[in-house]
Amino acid sequence: MASEPLLMNLENNVYLEDDVLVIIDRRKLPGIVTPVYCSNEEEVASAIREMMVQGAGDIAITAGFGLYLAARELERKGRDRDRVSLEKTASLLRATRPTGFHMAALLDKIMVRIDEAQDSMKPSEIIMKYLNRAMERQREISRQTGFHAEPLITSGDTILTHCFAGPGLLYMFQYARDKGKEINVMCTETRPYLQGARLTAWSVSEMGFNTTLITDNMAAWCMSRGMIQKVFTAADRVAMDGTAANKVGTLQLAICARHYGIPFYILGYGGPDRRTKKGEDIPIEERDAREVLEFQSQPISGPRVKGYYPAFDLTPPELIDGVVTASGIQKY
Amino acid sequence: MASEPLLMNLENNVYLEDDVLVIIDRRKLPGIVTPVYCSNEEEVASAIREMMVQGAGDIAITAGFGLYLAARELERKGRDRDRVSLEKTASLLRATRPTGFHMAALLDKIMVRIDEAQDSMKPSEIIMKYLNRAMERQREISRQTGFHAEPLITSGDTILTHCFAGPGLLYMFQYARDKGKEINVMCTETRPYLQGARLTAWSVSEMGFNTTLITDNMAAWCMSRGMIQKVFTAADRVAMDGTAANKVGTLQLAICARHYGIPFYILGYGGPDRRTKKGEDIPIEERDAREVLEFQSQPISGPRVKGYYPAFDLTPPELIDGVVTASGIQKY
Repeated sequence: MASEPLLMNLENNVYLEDDVLVIIDRRKLPGIVTPVYCSNEEEVASAIREMMVQGAGDIAITAGFGLYLAARELERKGRDRDRVSLEKTASLLRATRPTGFHMAALLDKIMVRIDEAQDSMKPSEIIMKYLNRAMERQREISRQTGFHAEPLITSGDTILTHCFAGPGLLYMFQYARDKGKEINVMCTETRPYLQGARLTAWSVSEMGFNTTLITDNMAAWCMSRGMIQKVFTAADRVAMDGTAANKVGTLQLAICARHYGIPFYILGYGGPDRRTKKGEDIPIEERDAREVLEFQSQPISGPRVKGYYPAFDLTPPELIDGVVTASGIQKY
Repeated sequence: MASEPLLMNLENNVYLEDDVLVIIDRRKLPGIVTPVYCSNEEEVASAIREMMVQGAGDIAITAGFGLYLAARELERKGRDRDRVSLEKTASLLRATRPTGFHMAALLDKIMVRIDEAQDSMKPSEIIMKYLNRAMERQREISRQTGFHAEPLITSGDTILTHCFAGPGLLYMFQYARDKGKEINVMCTETRPYLQGARLTAWSVSEMGFNTTLITDNMAAWCMSRGMIQKVFTAADRVAMDGTAANKVGTLQLAICARHYGIPFYILGYGGPDRRTKKGEDIPIEERDAREVLEFQSQPISGPRVKGYYPAFDLTPPELIDGVVTASGIQKY
């Protein structure tokens, strides 16, 4: 019954084959497992922009691979030391998704390593070494986050979650089951890209948990009926004041959870971004309105209707009962 | 620019052609105007069940036409007085959608009229007379509701609405414009059937209003940014204690509106149902989970995932700033 879900480890869905980056297109999951082949930084940037990969940590690693492909290409042309071109690539990648901070932080750190290394190692080797360690660290952070979150769960709980909260959520459920706890999972479908339906509900149900899908507008009703005991979501960025930027819809779940006295937790993985003091400092990505006005390329409204698509929202610290990170639980 | 929207008057989308009831299938709007032809009560019941028509008042009239077709068929067979068969048809129709009270009330009243009329008129004539008056009354109630709601709007407001709140909403906007008020309308798409996108946003934009579509999970974020000044929805039933049963998602809009101090109003049309004392007395229809697990017949999640589809939710009176009816505004 239970099996390790595809999305539990990034290596299963974003990996190199020679000098081509293979990305399993998450927009098609679970129906179709479509590998997308990116052979240069432009293609990687476009895959990130078009949301073939999702989640701030996974986006960061994927962008790192984009930088790697650019470095390899420069090296093939004998331009190993062309730092200007590499920085251009980093800027291209950084601009794809502004709300998470992991990608910018990872690219910045890699560029510093390349500067510091001088001629002892090729940039592509430095990048690959950094990415391998970053992936290992990310896996460990996910495990630790799940480990620290697990005690928040009581046997018999139904946990509501939104969008795909990453491997930390899956580890949390796995650890809870290992301790003999019974868990039910409820997922909001998460419009417009349906990550909750396609990624979370699928992953969790494949792990053998009793999983129920609802549309985004049903959460408060389920809360009002006593059907939900806790809410957990991830965050693309946590500011130093404890504000969490996450997939749009998180804020209204937090408001409704507070209304019904249901604990609301953020899986904060590596913790807040030290460079972001307050929630207002987080840029909220606005995406193409067509993604709201169309469903699977079919228009769903009239021709004179505009769309608005903020991809994230900000949940203030007073609505969050705890931010769970790899080092424990923090209340802001 | 402005034109009368198709959904402003029921006669435009549910009407008799000889002894066939034509229903414009609302699930296909606005992309395709598909007339569905119902030649007996079974087909009418099925059209109601499958949500080709929507909104408690419109469902009631449509069910009345179903009873009319049954009466005509009995009369053709010379069974004018077969009250048992007619009552069977009424029961079949009543069972299609339990949350609204208008349909049951209308069918009950028609059956009483038939009993009282004895042999002076054929049942089909009694039904048609009743339906014509009910449609006229419904139109008048919509106009009056819009008239009483209009003063709640201030020029410059952006009004958020959910699902399709019926002609009362459209009259409210029309009256406000007639007074020179500028209005912007924001519509939640209203999953799973997308009535907000397909019916409301379309109708309002065709009337010439600046109309923006959002997904259901974006409402709180828009409220938090000061983008919404008032929220108006309809109700399929208002209980005597002021609880409103309406399309699922209404409750969480009311909770979020209260959180941000934004007035939340219900267009209550003819007013509360005298037979329903409290909110808990309203049966909440649960629909087929497939409607959540599939989108346009395509599965959106994994095969082991269950779905839950409560079609309505209950908003308690303390979250409602006013119920606007044809006779004024009531606070419970």
